[in-house]
Order: sequence, then C-alpha cells, then structure tokens
Amino acid sequence: MTSTDVPTTDERAYADMAELSAAPLWRQYGELMPAQPVSRARPHLWPYARLRPVAMHFSRALSLAEAERRVLMMVNPGLTDPPATVPTLFAGIQIVMPGETARAHRHTANAFRFIIEGDGAVTTVNGEQLAMRPGDLLLTPGWHWHDHAHQGHSPMMWLDGLDYPLVNNLNAGFFELYQAPVQPVANPDEASSRQFRHGRLNPAWRAPSTEHPGVSPVGSYPWEETERALATITEAGTVAGSAAEGILLEYSNPWTGGPVLPTIACRIARLRAGFAGVPRQHTASTIYHVVSGSGSTTVGEQRLDWNEHDTFCVPGWARYAHQVAAQGDATLFSYTDEPVLRVLGLYREQWL
Amino acid sequence: MTSTDVPTTDERAYADMAELSAAPLWRQYGELMPAQPVSRARPHLWPYARLRPVAMHFSRALSLAEAERRVLMMVNPGLTDPPATVPTLFAGIQIVMPGETARAHRHTANAFRFIIEGDGAVTTVNGEQLAMRPGDLLLTPGWHWHDHAHQGHSPMMWLDGLDYPLVNNLNAGFFELYQAPVQPVANPDEASSRQFRHGRLNPAWRAPSTEHPGVSPVGSYPWEETERALATITEAGTVAGSAAEGILLEYSNPWTGGPVLPTIACRIARLRAGFAGVPRQHTASTIYHVVSGSGSTTVGEQRLDWNEHDTFCVPGWARYAHQVAAQGDATLFSYTDEPVLRVLGLYREQWL
Amino acid sequence: MTSTDVPTTDERAYADMAELSAAPLWRQYGELMPAQPVSRARPHLWPYARLRPVAMHFSRALSLAEAERRVLMMVNPGLTDPPATVPTLFAGIQIVMPGETARAHRHTANAFRFIIEGDGAVTTVNGEQLAMRPGDLLLTPGWHWHDHAHQGHSPMMWLDGLDYPLVNNLNAGFFELYQAPVQPVANPDEASSRQFRHGRLNPAWRAPSTEHPGVSPVGSYPWEETERALATITEAGTVAGSAAEGILLEYSNPWTGGPVLPTIACRIARLRAGFAGVPRQHTASTIYHVVSGSGSTTVGEQRLDWNEHDTFCVPGWARYAHQVAAQGDATLFSYTDEPVLRVLGLYREQWL
Amino acid sequence: MTSTDVPTTDERAYADMAELSAAPLWRQYGELMPAQPVSRARPHLWPYARLRPVAMHFSRALSLAEAERRVLMMVNPGLTDPPATVPTLFAGIQIVMPGETARAHRHTANAFRFIIEGDGAVTTVNGEQLAMRPGDLLLTPGWHWHDHAHQGHSPMMWLDGLDYPLVNNLNAGFFELYQAPVQPVANPDEASSRQFRHGRLNPAWRAPSTEHPGVSPVGSYPWEETERALATITEAGTVAGSAAEGILLEYSNPWTGGPVLPTIACRIARLRAGFAGVPRQHTASTIYHVVSGSGSTTVGEQRLDWNEHDTFCVPGWARYAHQVAAQGDATLFSYTDEPVLRVLGLYREQWL
Repeated sequence: MTSTDVPTTDERAYADMAELSAAPLWRQYGELMPAQPVSRARPHLWPYARLRPVAMHFSRALSLAEAERRVLMMVNPGLTDPPATVPTLFAGIQIVMPGETARAHRHTANAFRFIIEGDGAVTTVNGEQLAMRPGDLLLTPGWHWHDHAHQGHSPMMWLDGLDYPLVNNLNAGFFELYQAPVQPVANPDEASSRQFRHGRLNPAWRAPSTEHPGVSPVGSYPWEETERALATITEAGTVAGSAAEGILLEYSNPWTGGPVLPTIACRIARLRAGFAGVPRQHTASTIYHVVSGSGSTTVGEQRLDWNEHDTFCVPGWARYAHQVAAQGDATLFSYTDEPVLRVLGLYREQWL
Repeated sequence: MTSTDVPTTDERAYADMAELSAAPLWRQYGELMPAQPVSRARPHLWPYARLRPVAMHFSRALSLAEAERRVLMMVNPGLTDPPATVPTLFAGIQIVMPGETARAHRHTANAFRFIIEGDGAVTTVNGEQLAMRPGDLLLTPGWHWHDHAHQGHSPMMWLDGLDYPLVNNLNAGFFELYQAPVQPVANPDEASSRQFRHGRLNPAWRAPSTEHPGVSPVGSYPWEETERALATITEAGTVAGSAAEGILLEYSNPWTGGPVLPTIACRIARLRAGFAGVPRQHTASTIYHVVSGSGSTTVGEQRLDWNEHDTFCVPGWARYAHQVAAQGDATLFSYTDEPVLRVLGLYREQWL
Repeated sequence: MTSTDVPTTDERAYADMAELSAAPLWRQYGELMPAQPVSRARPHLWPYARLRPVAMHFSRALSLAEAERRVLMMVNPGLTDPPATVPTLFAGIQIVMPGETARAHRHTANAFRFIIEGDGAVTTVNGEQLAMRPGDLLLTPGWHWHDHAHQGHSPMMWLDGLDYPLVNNLNAGFFELYQAPVQPVANPDEASSRQFRHGRLNPAWRAPSTEHPGVSPVGSYPWEETERALATITEAGTVAGSAAEGILLEYSNPWTGGPVLPTIACRIARLRAGFAGVPRQHTASTIYHVVSGSGSTTVGEQRLDWNEHDTFCVPGWARYAHQVAAQGDATLFSYTDEPVLRVLGLYREQWL
Repeated sequence: MTSTDVPTTDERAYADMAELSAAPLWRQYGELMPAQPVSRARPHLWPYARLRPVAMHFSRALSLAEAERRVLMMVNPGLTDPPATVPTLFAGIQIVMPGETARAHRHTANAFRFIIEGDGAVTTVNGEQLAMRPGDLLLTPGWHWHDHAHQGHSPMMWLDGLDYPLVNNLNAGFFELYQAPVQPVANPDEASSRQFRHGRLNPAWRAPSTEHPGVSPVGSYPWEETERALATITEAGTVAGSAAEGILLEYSNPWTGGPVLPTIACRIARLRAGFAGVPRQHTASTIYHVVSGSGSTTVGEQRLDWNEHDTFCVPGWARYAHQVAAQGDATLFSYTDEPVLRVLGLYREQWL
C-alpha cells in the first residue's frame, strides 16, 4: 500500500458505517424523501385475448392437484421481485376445468374472485356454497376456508384479486391446507349471503363477526343485482356520477357501510358512450378489469387501449383519465388499496 | 300552638330541606333505584278500524292549513303528560286528502313515515321528491326540510314515527317553518335515493354528510324492495331468523350499516303462519305496526290481538311474545329506541 | 238530555279519540314542537352552608343501615316528579360518619363522587380500594359493585352525581345488593388506577373492558393531579382557555380520550380573578359544584351567587355567563349530559 | 436450429407469459403463500459506542446545510434496497452541533425524536417550540413543519424514528421545504403540549384536528413525566405488567386513547433486575432503544446483548425474549408498526 492508499478519515468513517450496517442518510435523502411519490410500478395492460390461450394450454398441460391453484400472475414490469401487480395488490387469471377441484385452504391474505366466463362452478367459503356466474363478485376474506369445484361444461375463468404483496410486506402471511380436499357444505343455497342481498335490509338476528371485523359477511355479490343497480341509477339520466370514473359504485359491507375487505375496496363503474374522464391522481393504486365495452386510459404519458376482459393497472399518484368511444357504454370492475391509505392517513388526491 | 305542636328536630330538618329544594333520598330509594325497570308506559293497541273513521271525520272538519299537521296521536295511557307512545318515541296516524298540502317545516326531532294506504302523494325532503306508496318507508331526519303534497284521488294515511319525547326530554327540540309553503324540488325523480337503492352498492362519488352523521342518505325505502328482500330470504326455507321476531330485517344506513336514524331503528318482520315467538324482554321500547295478517302479542299479563294496520307498543323490559295463527303469514313493521340504549351502554336483553 | 246537549260530530270524534287513547296533535303542536327548547328545569342553587347542618342532623338521627345511602337530594323545583336535578342528571350531598359503612351494591345508573370534606374514608369499586380526599373524583360506573367505609375522624361529605333520571326514563334501571355488606378488597393500593394516573402513558398489557365499553378504567382522579394540571397550564399565562368557562379541563377516559362515563362528562375549570364569561347557550344541561372561590352565574334573567361548596345547575338551552370578582380565582367542578346529546346528534350551541 | 431446439408447447406458453408480463403462480406458490411469515429483515443491534464516534466525525466533516439532516441510518442487513430498519420503519441517529440549525421542512412520513444526549436544542413543530432533553419523546407527525436549532454547548444526539419505508411502499411520500430556513415560533413555552401534559385532563376548549385524525396533539412527552409514571406504578410493587415486556407503557393520543401516530406506537418499558421475559412472537415489527441499563434479547437463534443507548430490532413473527441481569433495572424505549397491523386485521400474536 502506498501512501496514496491511506484512507482518509472520511473513508474510514464510511467503512465503519458499512461494517455496522449503517448508512449516510445524506447520500440518498432525495430518493427516500421524494417531493412526490414515485411508484416502482408501471402502468400496464394484460390483454385477455393473449392470456386466455396460455391459460387454456396449462389447463391441459398442468394438473390442478400439482399446481394448488392454476393462475397466471399479472406481474407488473416494475415489481418483479417479489412479484406483484401494484405494490400492495395482486391480479391473476385462474382457470378451472370441468370436473376439477381446487382444494380447500386458507390464508391471511384477503382475496376475491370476479368471474370472467364459464358456468357451473361453485366456491365454498367457510361452509357456504356460492355459485359462480359471469360478473359475480365472490369474497374469500383472510383466514376463511375456501375451495372451488367445477361441475359444468366449459372452462371457468376468473380474475383473482389478493392483497398478498401488502400482507407479505407486513410479515403477516399465514397459509394452511384444510384437513380434507374439500370442506363440507353447510349452506348449499347461499343462505347466508342471500340474507344480505337485497335493498338496504340487514338480518337483525345476526351480529358482525368479532373475529373478522371489517370483513363483509356477504359471500357473493351477484351480477344480476349489480346490473340492476347500474341500470336503476342510469335510467333516470340525471346522475352524473364521478367526473373521473362515471357511475362508480362501491360494493359495501352491510355491517359498516365501508369496503368489503379491510384492505381492498371493490367497485364497478359504468362509463357512458363518449365519456371523457377528468384527469386526476391519487395515492391509491388501482387495478381495472373490463367487464364489457372498450376504451382507453391515459396514464401519465402512456395510453392503454382496453377491450372486454382485459386487465390493467394505474399505479399510485399516476395521473390518469379514462375515455370511451362514442358508440357504446363500457363497464369497468376495479379494486384498490384506498382503504389502507385512508385508514393510515395517507390518502391524497388531486384533480388536474 | 300547644306544646305537642312544637316541631321535632327531625321535622325541622325535613322542613329545611323542602325549603332548600332538597329531599331525603332514603324516603324514595327503592323507587329511584328499582331492582329492575318499571316503565310508566303500558302495553297498548290502537285499532285502525276505529281510528280511521276519526281521521276521516277530521279530514272534513279541520283544514290542514290550520292544523299544521292533521295527526291522531297514539298516547300511551301511562304517558299522558307530556303525551308519548313510549317514553322516547311517538306514533301517530296522519291523513292528507287529495289536493291538500302540508306545509314545509323542519324540526330537530327525527321522523319517518310508513305508508298505510293511498296513492299519488309525495313528500319532499331537502329538495328531493319522494313518492308515497303503501309499505314505503320515508325518512325525514332531524333538521331536514319536509313537506307533503297530495295530487291523487283517495285519502293518504300513514304512520308517523318521531323521537320528540326523547328530544324534548333532552331539551333539544327546535322547530322552524320554511319561508314558503312548499320547498322547490331539486330531485323530482328521487335521484338521490335511487343511487342507494339496490343490492349492496354505494355511490362512490358521494360522501357521508358531516352535518348529520348517523343519518341515512336514503330518502325512501320502497316496499317493492322490502317485499323482494323478505321473499328472497324466505324462499330458500332454511333461514329461521330470530326466535322472538321471525325473519326480522333492519332498514340500514348505507354509510354505516347501522340504524337509519341516530335514535330510531326501523325494522320489518315476516312471521310465518303458526309462528310462536320465544318470550323475551329487553330495555328497548318498541312500537309495532301491522302491515298485513293478524296475530297476537302477549305483553306481561296482557294479550294484544292485532289485525292489519293496527299499531301497538311493547314498553321496555316488558316480557313479550308474538303468536301467529296457522292460516297465514303476518308482516310487522316496527321501530325502537334500541340504538339509544346501545350507544349509552344501557341495552340489556333476556330470553325467558 | 235536551237537544242542546246532543253532541256535535266533532265532539263525538274527540270523545272517540279519548276512549281509544288517541289525541289531536293539532291542539298541542306548539308545545310538542317548540321553536326552541323549553326545559322544565329551572336554574337553581343549593347553598352548602344551609345543606350541611341538615346533613349533620341526619348523620345523628338516621342510621346508615336503614337509609341504604344517607343523601340529600338536590331536587330541581321544576323536576319534582320524578325528582331530578336536571332532566338527565342528579346531584346529592352524601354524608358518612366515622365508623360507618355504606353497604355494597350496584346499579346500572352511572355514578361518581366528588369529595367535599373529610378524610379517612375509602370507596371500594369492583375490588379496588380508593382513598377519598377533598377534590378527588371517584368513578363508580354502571353495574360496578361499590361500598364506602369510613375509618377517619371527621364527617365525610361528598357530591354524588348520577344519571338515574336518564336511565330510568329509558327503562334501563337495575339495582342489586351485594351478597355481603362489603366486598373483598383485591387492590388495596389503587394499583389499577395508579397505572393510568400520570402523564399520557397507558399500561400496554391491559385492554379496554368489552363488558363496559366507554367506561374509564380509572377509579380515582386525585386532586393532587388535577391541581398540578391546572397549575401547569395557567403558570405560562399564555393560555386563554374557553371564553365561556375559562381553563376548562375534561377528565378523560384513557382508552378513548372521551368522557369518563358514556352518559356524563366531568370537568374542572379555573376562572381567574376578574373573569367575565362570554354568554352562551347549549342543549346540554350542566351541574356545577364550587371547589373554591366565589362568583356568580347569570342564567337567563336569574343570577346565582355562589360560594365554596355550593352546587347549582344550568338547564339545557338556558343562556348563561359566569363572573368572578377581582380579588381571587375560582375553581368549578362540573358535570354534564353533553356526551348523550352529542352521540345522538342533538348537541347544539350558540354564543350570544 | 436442430430439431431438438424446437420449443415444446410448454416452453412456448412460458415464453408467451414472459412476454406479456405474466408468470406462473404454481412455480412460486410456497414462497408467496408461506405457512407463516418469513421476514426479510434480520434481528440486528447497532451499538451506540461504535456509532457515536462516526456521528462525531461527520459533525465535523459534513455541514448540516449540505446534508439536509445529518443522520446515520440503521439499515437492516436484509433490507438494503430500499434501506429500512424493519420493513415498515426506520431508525437513525441524528446529530446536531451547537450553533447549528436543521432547516424547516415537512413530509408525509410520520416521525418522532427520542433524545439520547445533549441539552439546549429545540424543535419547532407547526409553530410550537419544544425543548429537547434526554428521554423526551417529541412528535413530528406527517405533513407538520419542523426544524431543529441548537443553542447549547454539547452535541445533541437523538434517535429518529420514521415510517417512510411503509409510506414509500404505499406511494404516499411527499416532501416540501419551508419557504424560510426556520419557521416563526408561535408558542415558545410549549403552551399547546403543556395543556395535555398532566394526569388525565384534556383541554375542553380544543377539538381534535380534522386534517390529521389519529395524530396526537401533544408535541412533547417529557422524560420527567415518563419517569414519574414508571416510578408510580412500580413503587407499589404489586403490578407485574406484561410477561414479555415488563412494565410497558404506551404513549397515548389524548383525543383517542390510541397510538401517538396512525402508523407508529411508541412505548417505554421498565424491566426489573432479574427479569426473564416469556418468549412470544407477533406479526408486528419492533425497534428498541436502550434508555438505561443492560441486558439481552434472544431473537430466534440469535442473542443480542444490549447496553445503554444501543438500538436493536425484532422483525415481525420472530420469536423473542428479553433478559435482564440480577444487578440493575433496565429501561427500553420501543416503537412498532402494531397499529398498522391491527387496523388492517393482520395482527396476530402467540406465546411460546
């Protein structure tokens, strides 16, 4: 070592720090304290027309018994390790074929299914059997046993939404297999969900769960009701809805009026033909799934053109605006981590 | 005054107390601290068949302009001064004739209307016009402007429910006339209520009122939806409901999942033919109105036989049980101060 | 009966109503729906100098065993049947003599004691023994066992505050004697209360009671702490406090930050020499007890002059203002039903 | 390309997925859905004796004007990119020298300072000037302006706690410089904090912030009060406290009774000489700072020996137990993301 290699006192201090697992804040202050949020997630669209054939391939090439769940994960290009769709949420396409069963398990991650196509499958959640029809929203809240069985004739495809990226980041992910492949069915006719289905009437002989506060007791929000609600509101023609999202309805927890899951709000929007949303940005991240129609969403500098059954995401604090062409309405299902941001005092939004 | 008239020191002390507006607790301890509640209210039934002709008489004999509201108060025989139906709540029969208008006013007392008969009348609540059809529940929450107008052909009769006995006892009753006989109509098509009507979907572009927290934003809970809910639950045949009240549904506030008004919970129950309720008692007081069918309710030692459109009350902590004869279902609308008792930590119930 | 005695159809209709326990709303609308609240309670002051001798008399003339509690009730001249101090709350002077024991019981009415004079007595609340020193606030929340024992040398006098008028009006009053004259002492050193006493630090190994939500876990708020808080705030000299009530502090429930009891808020105020409160009115009713100093309170047209240990009340919606003379500070303890009005959406205030 | 190079249909499907930013869930199911949480964070200890000289070096070598804040970050060896101490929280050692000023800024990340050594510095938070003395806890909640100035004689060293890892992960990090180097001082004598300091008495003329719900209004929790609380509880000798954490007190928000910040709970524990904690694990992550005394904490298989002013962390779901030697008490300050886990329904704990 020549004299020029003698470390300065500064170099020694930095080396000491490294050895102690310490680091100088001043070298990355701007990155850790940005003027405004910079999400690692990118706006992205997953076209159903291209994902469906892949799903069909694996429905033949991969047994469900081996796979646990046969799901194509939609991995945000900016969030590959660990894989996530937005920093807190996950979206996947699940496929179950006639005759198959996805065995019973539970996890602390909250989940839901939004049905894309197929008929004849059922999901059993804590003993209650729920039919799966296109447009239905089924909840499998955290630590609820659930399994899926398919006795129909065509492939069942649905969107899986989970909060495992958030749950894992919070060191709170638990998983357990049920003691048998499927759980016994206690409520074959959706008796429990049916009690909450209509109007604004809650069964007065039941009480909210103390074990799972903040979790909706409704197993299934059937499309038939959703469509009726959208139609009823729009038929009068006098309701403008949200300037950014059109006629935007939130699936609600009948015990609280709040989101259906403590970490995820689920919504449905009808954008009328010719809709041009006012641009805005908010700290919540959103994943959209196109129920019907087509249009485009501008996110920052990028434009995502979407068609029926496509899925796309808008990262937190990205500026976005939806547009629908003049010739037909569009219907967008979406889910968001907004409840998390709100309850922690971190939700902020801005119209542009 | 003879020597025997000389007051004892005790007599002097009692006299001093009286002069000071003080009183000996030990002389009425048992009354003020009863082993269990003894309501001054008595179980009572008001038969519609006898009230209706009286209402019809005054519809001719009394102008609505003079009366402010043409209402037959149902005054509990134990609660005549001030008059109330149960200690906290009031029930009345209101009649409005074709061509009449009940002028716009507001009061801090919370109120609702449950329609008994007639068609063609409307209630306007804070600018939203609501149709009135038999079985509809309309809310006129505290300090909301409201007026009624009738352009149909037959008499409109409805049940008025208010919490003015509670509100007045709490020194919180305010009243104001609107500057004009009727308020302008901003939402002729119930646009606001319509947004909350179906399923479990809340309009996401609206936010709960900060001025009236705990008040449902729904103007009208139409009978069509209520009947559909009752039918959907009962059709499966597997739901037993409440052992005391049958299939008992509570009208809910979509923002909170709780009661429609901070002080009043409104409910609807279907009691199947042959229903025999398990007796119970609770500190809440309840007023029932018979939508359809007939039956009887045993309250303490008394039996109240009820028929369509009758109104009756069950005082707090009275033991009661409903019975329905074998030949037909019955439907009971009811309202109760249970939310008040619960929020103050004073609700208690006991099955017998 | 002559022809002139033939009842008119109107008279018959009114008679029918009376027979049915119905009444015409139009004959008392203004009374039931007043433009603003008119409390039956009147402003009133109970001078300690005159009540004390009466209490002393009965301390000799009446055995505590017979009396259950030896309490002089302060009965509002407008609220004699049933007796109450304001419509919802009660105030009494209780006296216990050396060697006496007030036996253990519990009631659903919430209660507290604010100590006026004496030393050496203890109150045991659900097994925790609490010392009683002048200025201490002791809670005996609803359905908590409590008894008092006095092993000191001078008479113990304290202010009893209860919500039984509200509780009884809500049909929710229950009472029970303990199986023995006194309950066993589990915490002789106030261990439980001591854990919550200082600063803003809650014991993290304890959890709020699920049986009594909204009830403070603190048995005693000792005067020493209260005085220290008042002194600390006032010493800086920069805090103006409330324009109506001076340096007004509320005893708080450490689990919620809210009132110490679900129905009663307890407060302490220091009014500096020369204080002249801005007049205001609110729907809450308040009972004041003078800890030290003297002054006067104008209530409506009436002026109440108060001195040490006097008790007085300000009914709901009465306009009031406090004044303190130039020569010395005054300290007022007070309690109010404001939490009830707030939670029911009925609190309203106005500065004049 | 030879025939063996022809991709199989499987290979093609996987390639398609990759191209679409999709991935097979079945290849990483176990990792994403672990049987129980596996934190990337590792147990680690940062010895003050070694960090202090490094901090002193940079107090000379680095101007505060350039550094924005002169902070040694404690970077968990398992969480280097982005750097964090546990997945949601950050710990750093900040040093300010006599005569220096750390300029005013604000960020949505919540922060606090726990003073280690030095005297004579002040922090100004939204206009209120707060003294900094060893053991004091000062809050600088999200989006509150704050700056630090030091007019004393010895170096000021404190522990910085922030939730920026959580906030950044949720895309909710905003930062802003104040328009001037320091903000004007509106409350030089801590008037605001002083109002909340003692006992359990809240200033009744103030109301909780609607802009920052869930944020404590107390600027400073001084060590003098903390020590008094610890002493009062322990002097009776009858309180065992938590089997895992000893006499563990939580700094509380006087408006809610809950944690001082929506995302961070701050606590202080006194572990008596000879304390041997019962092992447990919970999903919350904790950072400890040794106020005084020494001991050791076993985390999983690792043992961390700690002395005065050291900082160490226990990752979520790690099994841990504290031990203190026989010869002296220890006092541990700690902070945790438990409020986040609880409010999202993800808190779970287990005693071992």
